[in-house]
Amino acid sequence: MLNNDIDILLHFFTKLPNFGKRSARRTVLHLINNKENLMLPLAKAIENTANSVKICQECYNFDSFSPCNICSNEKRDRTTICVVEEVADLWAIERSNMFKGIYHVLGGVLSAVDGKGPNELNIESLVKKAGNYLVKEIILATNATVEGQTTAHYITTRLQDFSVIVTRIAYGMPIGGEIDYLDEGTLSAAFNSRRPL
Amino acid sequence: MLNNDIDILLHFFTKLPNFGKRSARRTVLHLINNKENLMLPLAKAIENTANSVKICQECYNFDSFSPCNICSNEKRDRTTICVVEEVADLWAIERSNMFKGIYHVLGGVLSAVDGKGPNELNIESLVKKAGNYLVKEIILATNATVEGQTTAHYITTRLQDFSVIVTRIAYGMPIGGEIDYLDEGTLSAAFNSRRPL
Repeated sequence: MLNNDIDILLHFFTKLPNFGKRSARRTVLHLINNKENLMLPLAKAIENTANSVKICQECYNFDSFSPCNICSNEKRDRTTICVVEEVADLWAIERSNMFKGIYHVLGGVLSAVDGKGPNELNIESLVKKAGNYLVKEIILATNATVEGQTTAHYITTRLQDFSVIVTRIAYGMPIGGEIDYLDEGTLSAAFNSRRPL
Repeated sequence: MLNNDIDILLHFFTKLPNFGKRSARRTVLHLINNKENLMLPLAKAIENTANSVKICQECYNFDSFSPCNICSNEKRDRTTICVVEEVADLWAIERSNMFKGIYHVLGGVLSAVDGKGPNELNIESLVKKAGNYLVKEIILATNATVEGQTTAHYITTRLQDFSVIVTRIAYGMPIGGEIDYLDEGTLSAAFNSRRPL
């Protein structure tokens, strides 16, 4: 029933995260119904980004130049490095607009299941940065998952011989959270990290 | 933080159905992480489809040629026309693989709210087909919504002077459905359309 071009397009859409056959069909039909103002511009935008995107050779962020606009921004505080798992985490922290330091993207987490060891992550380059006397603090902002915590622990041991201060972001109740809806792990983290008022 | 190409790409992704900012970001990062085997082929596939897709001048299906491969298939039964609202409905019926006739896509439904009258839909061309002595039955497969039923009713009145038989697909309990979970509208339709065993 389908012509070949449409079939190929459906195939690629089902490769995207959270896309099933149904959502791929809905999206492709939406695109065909908006050919001039959406379908062709989208194709061009994907191609342009694919051709221009670079990995920042300092922090491993994605940008159209390297060093990226964070690493090359003179107003950022070079004494504080925030370590994240993925570029998506870096973007999320940037949106909160409260961190003025620079970043270091690991490119994943240590995972025995996925066969990811320290050599598969950007850890050596982080250790090298820790040796720079200008760097005062390294903030570990890995996910609060088993793998994220394991990775943070590993990095801490790798950095213990340096004079740099290693911290991790706090675990606890999210702002706006309701105790009744919190899982036990978060609740016990929130209790263990309680602070005097 | 974002370079311009990525911002533009995020913008277009948020225009797709069921895409918010978060899913757009996740998709764009997934694409950048799979540049050669997904991102560039997807851009090409969208462009190819945009350039090749045509609206079938007989049934209004999308295909890379007109008449489409259903209308030009000699094995399809030209005496039976199935009327659907959108191309997505045509694709759904084709997947079920049980209809061997041809189609007619209305391109929407009558809707006072959206200002869609009979002239905005492909109704005149359907009336013309009904006048062809070869056509024996027109099956109305519009949605079981108020607009879909209104549209089906309107088409029925437009076709009443022709000798063609006008039917509509049955309303009732979906296969695998559980009575406890059915809404009252479906339940009463199922009771009203009950059949002797």
